Amino acid sequence: MASREEYYPRYIGTSSECSAKASKTEKELEIEIEDLRAKVNFLRLFCTGAGGLIAISRSNTFAFPDVELLIVSGPTDPANPLSSFPSVPAHRAVLASRSPVFRAMLENDMEESISGTIKVSDASYDALRAFVNYLYTAEACLDEHMASDLLVLAEKYQVTYLKTYCEKFLMSKLNLENVLPCYALALQHGAKCLRYESLSLIMDNMDKLSKGEEYMELVEKDPRVVVEIYEACLSK
Amino acid sequence: MASREEYYPRYIGTSSECSAKASKTEKELEIEIEDLRAKVNFLRLFCTGAGGLIAISRSNTFAFPDVELLIVSGPTDPANPLSSFPSVPAHRAVLASRSPVFRAMLENDMEESISGTIKVSDASYDALRAFVNYLYTAEACLDEHMASDLLVLAEKYQVTYLKTYCEKFLMSKLNLENVLPCYALALQHGAKCLRYESLSLIMDNMDKLSKGEEYMELVEKDPRVVVEIYEACLSK
Repeated sequence: MASREEYYPRYIGTSSECSAKASKTEKELEIEIEDLRAKVNFLRLFCTGAGGLIAISRSNTFAFPDVELLIVSGPTDPANPLSSFPSVPAHRAVLASRSPVFRAMLENDMEESISGTIKVSDASYDALRAFVNYLYTAEACLDEHMASDLLVLAEKYQVTYLKTYCEKFLMSKLNLENVLPCYALALQHGAKCLRYESLSLIMDNMDKLSKGEEYMELVEKDPRVVVEIYEACLSK
Repeated sequence: MASREEYYPRYIGTSSECSAKASKTEKELEIEIEDLRAKVNFLRLFCTGAGGLIAISRSNTFAFPDVELLIVSGPTDPANPLSSFPSVPAHRAVLASRSPVFRAMLENDMEESISGTIKVSDASYDALRAFVNYLYTAEACLDEHMASDLLVLAEKYQVTYLKTYCEKFLMSKLNLENVLPCYALALQHGAKCLRYESLSLIMDNMDKLSKGEEYMELVEKDPRVVVEIYEACLSK
């Protein structure tokens, strides 16, 4: 009987001449990708609907939820009970597995653990739904707005993988129209790579940018960010 | 604002000369593998123990389980209550997501759904534990014995991905000592690739094999399998 091992299927080359080669062949890499894709598909958790297992949407939900995420804006009072807020159902085990913040809330005797309700502030229903769906499937349909919203939630609940994903998406979409709000977002939510890329684009185009509407808005809304940009330009 | 899209981070080459190339470069393939590995790590569900999130073992368990898999041998009676059988805790949502058989048990008003208990027969505690762990993590420490046990469970609960994984492992370990029991296993549990590979090795070595202990055992235990082998050899 062979000793136990973690088994990874691998491509076995037919040519003995290749055996001395250290790096993988293109064929081997492609087989590894195929295997990893199958593994990702296997590991995704889907919710159930009339048509069987499908991705989460407004009209369906995950089966057997044991916790609710509640979008709360402002303090709650008897005239405005929790049940009136929009909510997204989920599973404690999944949330705790994906986010250390949810884990701390759910595994100790915290209010959230006892009530089965997690209050989430400053998020839209669509963003929270997409956030929860990502925790189950590692998939999200992104546009710039959704990527910003998900980056904020990912930062808040320390879902590093999603944060990086949104950051990469926003970096791929950087242009002179969105670079200032992207820089402000990156600065506020500790997105280092996005911050670095934005700043680099800003510094190369400061003349143009300082005449635009986005610049005026940023000066109005968050002048400290503008000061930081000028300081970075100076030290260049 | 860009239209929504499923975003996959990709390698952006720096050389414009490469832009016409249809197939991916080695560097691109490696980046894709890295990204998929990160995704697999993100999607794995781990159980909790004293040291935080760790792989499942005898001493720890998944947090917030809502169903139990019970190893039952023989009919139950008052003198032998269900609570006396070894059990593995799990989550309905995970089981239903991974296996259509569990899904049918849990999503309808079946005995299992109401009681929160799924009876599993003909499995060892270690195999069931490894099976459940695989459903959460897509990982298993295999030896030939465990691969056989998991293949049986994967077939029974229609976890195709795990069945293929075990089949590939057993195929990579085929030799003259284990080929006959492997062939019998493959035949009994519909593992086509393993069956084909085993039969091929058997046909090339029937002279030697028919003098061995494993052959005598198979004739004793399952003569129909031996007949099938001879028929296959004849039609070769």
